[in-house]
Amino acid sequence: SASQDLDLKILQTVMEQLDANRIRENLRELSKEPHLATSPRDEALVQLLLQRWQDPESGLDSARTTEYEVLLSFPSGEQPNRVDVVNSTGAVLFSCRQSEENVTGEQGGPDVVPPYAAYAPPGTPQGPLVYANQGSEEDFKELQKEGVKLQDSIVLTRYGGVGRGAKAVNAAKYGVAGVLVYTDPKDINDGKSLPNETFPHSWCLPPSGVERGSYFEYFGDPLTPYLPATPSSFRLNSDNASGFPPIPIQPIGFEDAQVLLCNLGGKLAPANWQGGLGCDYNLGPGFRSNGIFPEDGQVNVSVHNRLELRNSSNVLGIIRGAVEPDRYVLYGNHRDSWVHGAVDPSTGTAVLLELSRVLGTLLKKGTWRPRRSIVFASWGAEEFGLIGSTEFTEEFFSKLQERAVAYINVDISVFANATLRVQGTPPIQSVVFSAAKQISAPGSSGLSIYDNWIRYYNRSSSVYGLVPSVGTLGAGSDYAPFIHFLGISSMDIAYTYDRSKTSARIYPTYHTAFDTFDYVDKFLDPGFSSHQAVARTAGSVLLRLSDSLFLPLNVSDYSETLRSFLQAAENLRGLLEQHNISFGPLATAVEKFEGAATSFNQRIATLREGTPDPLQVRMINDQLMLLERTFLNSQAFPEERYYSHVLWAPRTGSVATFPGLSNAYSQAENTGHEPAAWAEVQRQLSIVVAALEGAAATLRPVADL
Amino acid sequence: SASQDLDLKILQTVMEQLDANRIRENLRELSKEPHLATSPRDEALVQLLLQRWQDPESGLDSARTTEYEVLLSFPSGEQPNRVDVVNSTGAVLFSCRQSEENVTGEQGGPDVVPPYAAYAPPGTPQGPLVYANQGSEEDFKELQKEGVKLQDSIVLTRYGGVGRGAKAVNAAKYGVAGVLVYTDPKDINDGKSLPNETFPHSWCLPPSGVERGSYFEYFGDPLTPYLPATPSSFRLNSDNASGFPPIPIQPIGFEDAQVLLCNLGGKLAPANWQGGLGCDYNLGPGFRSNGIFPEDGQVNVSVHNRLELRNSSNVLGIIRGAVEPDRYVLYGNHRDSWVHGAVDPSTGTAVLLELSRVLGTLLKKGTWRPRRSIVFASWGAEEFGLIGSTEFTEEFFSKLQERAVAYINVDISVFANATLRVQGTPPIQSVVFSAAKQISAPGSSGLSIYDNWIRYYNRSSSVYGLVPSVGTLGAGSDYAPFIHFLGISSMDIAYTYDRSKTSARIYPTYHTAFDTFDYVDKFLDPGFSSHQAVARTAGSVLLRLSDSLFLPLNVSDYSETLRSFLQAAENLRGLLEQHNISFGPLATAVEKFEGAATSFNQRIATLREGTPDPLQVRMINDQLMLLERTFLNSQAFPEERYYSHVLWAPRTGSVATFPGLSNAYSQAENTGHEPAAWAEVQRQLSIVVAALEGAAATLRPVADL
Ligand SMILES: [Ca+2]
Ligand SMILES: [Ca+2]
Ligand SMILES: [Zn+2]
Ligand SMILES: [Zn+2]
Ligand SMILES: [Zn+2]
Ligand SMILES: [Zn+2]
Repeated sequence: SASQDLDLKILQTVMEQLDANRIRENLRELSKEPHLATSPRDEALVQLLLQRWQDPESGLDSARTTEYEVLLSFPSGEQPNRVDVVNSTGAVLFSCRQSEENVTGEQGGPDVVPPYAAYAPPGTPQGPLVYANQGSEEDFKELQKEGVKLQDSIVLTRYGGVGRGAKAVNAAKYGVAGVLVYTDPKDINDGKSLPNETFPHSWCLPPSGVERGSYFEYFGDPLTPYLPATPSSFRLNSDNASGFPPIPIQPIGFEDAQVLLCNLGGKLAPANWQGGLGCDYNLGPGFRSNGIFPEDGQVNVSVHNRLELRNSSNVLGIIRGAVEPDRYVLYGNHRDSWVHGAVDPSTGTAVLLELSRVLGTLLKKGTWRPRRSIVFASWGAEEFGLIGSTEFTEEFFSKLQERAVAYINVDISVFANATLRVQGTPPIQSVVFSAAKQISAPGSSGLSIYDNWIRYYNRSSSVYGLVPSVGTLGAGSDYAPFIHFLGISSMDIAYTYDRSKTSARIYPTYHTAFDTFDYVDKFLDPGFSSHQAVARTAGSVLLRLSDSLFLPLNVSDYSETLRSFLQAAENLRGLLEQHNISFGPLATAVEKFEGAATSFNQRIATLREGTPDPLQVRMINDQLMLLERTFLNSQAFPEERYYSHVLWAPRTGSVATFPGLSNAYSQAENTGHEPAAWAEVQRQLSIVVAALEGAAATLRPVADL
Repeated sequence: SASQDLDLKILQTVMEQLDANRIRENLRELSKEPHLATSPRDEALVQLLLQRWQDPESGLDSARTTEYEVLLSFPSGEQPNRVDVVNSTGAVLFSCRQSEENVTGEQGGPDVVPPYAAYAPPGTPQGPLVYANQGSEEDFKELQKEGVKLQDSIVLTRYGGVGRGAKAVNAAKYGVAGVLVYTDPKDINDGKSLPNETFPHSWCLPPSGVERGSYFEYFGDPLTPYLPATPSSFRLNSDNASGFPPIPIQPIGFEDAQVLLCNLGGKLAPANWQGGLGCDYNLGPGFRSNGIFPEDGQVNVSVHNRLELRNSSNVLGIIRGAVEPDRYVLYGNHRDSWVHGAVDPSTGTAVLLELSRVLGTLLKKGTWRPRRSIVFASWGAEEFGLIGSTEFTEEFFSKLQERAVAYINVDISVFANATLRVQGTPPIQSVVFSAAKQISAPGSSGLSIYDNWIRYYNRSSSVYGLVPSVGTLGAGSDYAPFIHFLGISSMDIAYTYDRSKTSARIYPTYHTAFDTFDYVDKFLDPGFSSHQAVARTAGSVLLRLSDSLFLPLNVSDYSETLRSFLQAAENLRGLLEQHNISFGPLATAVEKFEGAATSFNQRIATLREGTPDPLQVRMINDQLMLLERTFLNSQAFPEERYYSHVLWAPRTGSVATFPGLSNAYSQAENTGHEPAAWAEVQRQLSIVVAALEGAAATLRPVADL
C-alpha cells in the first residue's frame, strides 16, 4: 500500500540472518585467485555474482551485466619493469626484485601481476638518485632550496602525503627523469621491518611487499570523459588524453628501497623526512663515498607498461520497489583487485553477497518487498580509477539524476576490528546513527556500534552535543562519481583501526600480493564479527532508505557544515572586502538555508502526526532526495573533470571553507593579487551563494515563489 | 482528491469567459505609453500586473516581483546618434533623421527612444559607402569576389537573412568600419513605400520607421552568464564581456536608405540584392557620378550608445496546485517594449491578463483549483536579449529542473488574422491539437482553429497523415532559456499571416514607434477575435497541462523528429564511414527510442483503463515531464552559452539533422578534413547516441535495468 513503511520485524530478521560464517566463506571464494580487472578470474566472478543474484531461492528480481571498453594499463608480459643501480660503464651493480617474495605460496604464478604504476608511461630514464621524501610540492621546493640538482635525476619517494600521480607530476616540473616510490616501515608497519615481524607472523607488510596502484589523475575511463565507454563511443586519442604521469615511475619494496636509500650521499635529510629503514636518510644526489655503490653510480628505471583497451563488466542486480519502483537506493562495491584482493575489495563484496542473499531470500519467500527499488552493483576496474562506476553514472545519468535516493558504498568493509567508520554527506548522518544505535558492537564491550564508535571518532555538534564524527567523501572509491558528478547523497561504511594502537597509513598489505584470505582470517577479523557488524549497519541503512515512508535523510544536518564553512570564510573577509567583494550575501544565504531547513523539518513533523496522502509524502521525499542535486553547478569548476558539487569539490586552498572559494582565494594570494584572480574569487563566491539560495528554495513550501 | 482530472465544464467556462473586449481594454492600457525596459512606465506596469494578480476577486494565490541588476544599452541623452553624408572637407551634405516622423502624435516626446542598435559600441567611423545586401557571410564573399574594397568602408545592409548582430560580426572580418541597417519596402511592405500607402493609411511601415533591436549575440544579462544577476553577483568586466557587435552599427528608415542607396556608384548589385526603393541598387564603394553627392562623398556614422546597469523586474503570480503543488506549469510573456509595443509584447500581455483574470475569478470563487501549480510570469528586458526570463531560469534552476512540466510563451499573440501558428517541442503537439480542435476559428468559416490551421500550415506525418505543422523553437523569445538551458518542454503560440497575401518579413511596424494601439485595433485585429482565439487556445493548453490526471504530453511524437534527423544523417554516412565513424549506433539508438516510446504509451493506455494508484500516475507523469531533460548535455556545446539540448541547439551545418553532428560535419568538410575535426564529428555523434539511449532508458519500465 502507499503507506508502506519500515517494518521493524523485517529489519530485525535481516539483522539476525546476516551470518558471519557465510561472509567468511564468500571471502574465501572471492579471494582464492588473483582477479585483476578484466582477467579471466574477474570475468569468472562476474558469473558468480550473476548466479547468486539470479538464484531462484535467494536471488533478486533481475540481474545483468553492462560492459564497457576501457583503457587500462599493464606491465609488459615480455619485458619486465626493472630498477637497477649501474656504474659509469653501464654495468649492473644491483637490481631490485621484479616480484614480491613468495612467502605463503600465493605470491607466485602468472596471475600475480608484478608491481607497477598503472598508467606510468614507458621509458628507461637513468640518473643519479635523489631522496624526495613524499614527492610533494613542498618537498621539491625544499630540495631546490638545499641546492640538490634535480634535473635528469631519479627521485626516490615514499608513499603518503600526496596522491600517487602527484609525485610524478611534481617531480617532472623540476626536470626529474624518473620516480621510484616505496612504502616506509615507519609509515605502514609502525616501524617493524624484519621478516619475522611481518606477515605471515603479523599483519605487517613483508620487506618485499609493494603497493600497486593507479597513477591516473582523474577518474573514469581515460578516453571517454562524460560519455559511456561503449565500443562505438568517441575516444580521445591516448596521446592527447590527460591525467597520465608525465614521466616513468615504478614502485618498489622497502627491502630494495633500503639498499638505495641507506647508501645515498649528500646532506642529511630533514628530521621529518627520516623513516624506519634503520639508517640516516640523505638527500643525494648520488651515493655516499663509504657505501656499497660507487659515488657516481646511477639508477636506471626501465618501465615497459602498455595501454590496452579491455572489456570491463559491471554486474547490476535489482529488487523492484513495491510502492515507488522509480526511486532507487543503490548499494555497490568494486569487484576487481590488484592481486587476490582479500581485503580490497573482497571484504566488501563478501558483505554485499551476504546482504543480497538475506534480502533475496525474504523476497523470494514473499515475506518482503521494499517500498523503493534497490540496485546492487559490482563495479569493474575500480583500481584503475573508479572506471566501472563512473561509466555507469555516464550511461544512466538521466535516470539516476531523476530517481536515485542515495548510494551506499562498502569497499574494504574491514580495515581493522576497533570501530565503525563512516564517510558521507551530512543528510546521511541521521540514518547511519539510527542504524548504529540498534546494533551491538563486536567484542565483549556490550556497547552498541554507535556507543563504541563515539569512543574513537567524535566531535562536538552545536545541535546534538557529542556525536560520532562522519568523514567527508573524497575520490577514494566508487562513491566519487555519485556524489561529485551526480549529486546523489552517498556514504562509505567500514570497520577500522584503533588509532592509539597503530599509525599505519592503511592496512599494511594494501595492494600487495600479501592481501590474502589468511591475512583477513588470522589478523584482520578472526571470527568475522566486524564483517557482520558492517553488514548489519549497511543493511540497516539500506532497509531504512528503501522502506521508510519518509526518507530518513536529514537535510538540516547540512546547516552545521555550512555554518562551519561560513565561519572559516570569516578569515577571508578582510581581504575580500579590500577587493570589493561583499561577504554579506554568503552569510545571508547560509541563514536562509538554515531557516528553510528548520521549517521544512517542522512541516515533516506535522505531516507525520497526521495521515498524509501519498502525494504529500512523495513531495517531501522529492525535496529530500533532490536537495543534494541543488549543490551541483556544471560551470563551477571547468578544469575539474566530473567535479560539480560546490561543497565537496577538492580543496587545495588552506582555509577549510567552500572549496571553490578557498582555492580561488589561495590562488589570488599566490599570484600576487592579480585582478583576474580576485574576479575568480568573486565568481566562486557567487556560485556558492546561488547554490545555497537554490538549496533553500528547494526546501521551501513548493508553491512559495 | 488524488484522482482529480481535467473538468471539461470548467474548461468550457474558461473558454466562454475569455472576453475579446477586455483583451482590447488591456491592450489600450498596456500600450498607452512607451515602456522601454526599466523605464518609469515599465515599472508602472509592474505595479499594474501586481495589482491584477493580487486582486481579491480575480487575482491569484500570490504574486511578487524579482529584481535583477542587468546590463542594458541606451543611446546617449545628450549626443544623438547620427548618420551623415560628408564631402571631402567634412561638410555635412545630408543627414539621416534622428527620430521617426511624428505621424500619429505618438512618435514624439521624451519617452520614445530614438532608433538605435542596442549594445553597438560607440564610435564615429567614416568611409565610402558599400551596399552589402543582408550582411551575411556569403554577401561579403560576393563583394570580395566583385573586388569591392571593404576595408575602412561603411556598409549599408538590409534587415533579414541573418541575425542583427551577425551583420556587424561578418562586416568586421573584412575591416569594415561601420554598419547601417534598414528595412527594405520589398521585405516588409510588399513593395509599398509611399506615405499614403503606409500607416496610418494601411498596416505598412511609414518611410521614416526604423526597427530597433538588440545586437547582442547571446541571451541573458551579458555580465552574468549562468548566475542570477543579483546586485552582489560576480560580473564580467564589460570590456571582457563577449557577444557585443565589434563595430558601430546604426539602423535607419528606408526613406533615408533610399537617399544613400539610390545614389551609390560601382557595379550593379546582383538581382536578388535588389529591393523596393525604386532604383537600381549598386554596390559602391562611394557615390555615383550623376547623383546628388560628390563621388568621393563619405558616410559618417556617429554612435554614442552607453552601457548601463539597470534594475529590471519580473512579475510572478502563482496558483497553488490542489494535488501536485510541486509540479509547475509556466505561462509567460515579456512586458518591456521598444516604444509603445502594442503588438510586441502587449498583444501577448493583454491575453495573459485576461486569462489570469478568468482563472483567478474561478479560483477566488472557490469553483476551481488546478491539480498542479500554475506560474504566470511577466518578464523584464526581453528586448535586450531575453534577460528577465534567463535570469529567472538561473535563479530558480534547481526548482524548475525538478518540477516544471512545461512552459507556454505567448509574446506577440496576433501578427495577423489568418491562422494559428505554434512552435514547440514534439511532445506538446498533441495537447495543442486537442485544444485547437475544440475551439472555433475567428471569422465566418465555421471551422475549428485546428481545421483552419491545417489549411495554412501542414505536413504529412507518417503517423497521423496530414496535420498542422508545429515549428521548432529558436531563440526568438523567452522560451529559449526554458528549452535550451533547462530542457523544459516549451511552446510559443500566436495568430499569424496568410502567406499568400503578404511576404512581409514580420508585421511591418515591428520595433518601431508606429506599433501602437490604433495599429492593432484598425489593422491587425479589429474586434480582437484573433486575440480571443489565442487566449482560448493557450488557455485550453494551460488547463489541460495543469489539470489532466495524466500529463497530456506525447513523448512518442519525438520519434518522427528523430527518424527525420536520422534520415537526413544518412546523407553523411558515406563520409562518416570513410573516417571510420560507425553509423550503426545512431540508427540503433533511434530504434530503441521508438520502441521504448511505443511501449510506454501502451502502458499508459493500460493504466488508463484500470484505476491506477496516485503513485503509479505520478511515476508515469515524471517520465513524461523528465523526458525532455534527458536530451540535455552540458558538455555538448562548450562554445554555446546556455545551449545544451542536443536536438535543438542552433544548426549552422547544411544537413537538417542533429545540430551538433551537422555543425561538426560541415566544419570537417570546410577545414579540409582535419583529423581533429572528424574527431569532433565522432564526439557529437556519441553525444547524440548517449542522449537517445538515456531518453529511451527514461521511458522504459522504471525497474528495468
Ligand atoms: Ca566515460
Ligand atoms: Ca545571469
Ligand atoms: Zn577498493
Ligand atoms: Zn584498492
Ligand atoms: Zn516580443
Ligand atoms: Zn521584440
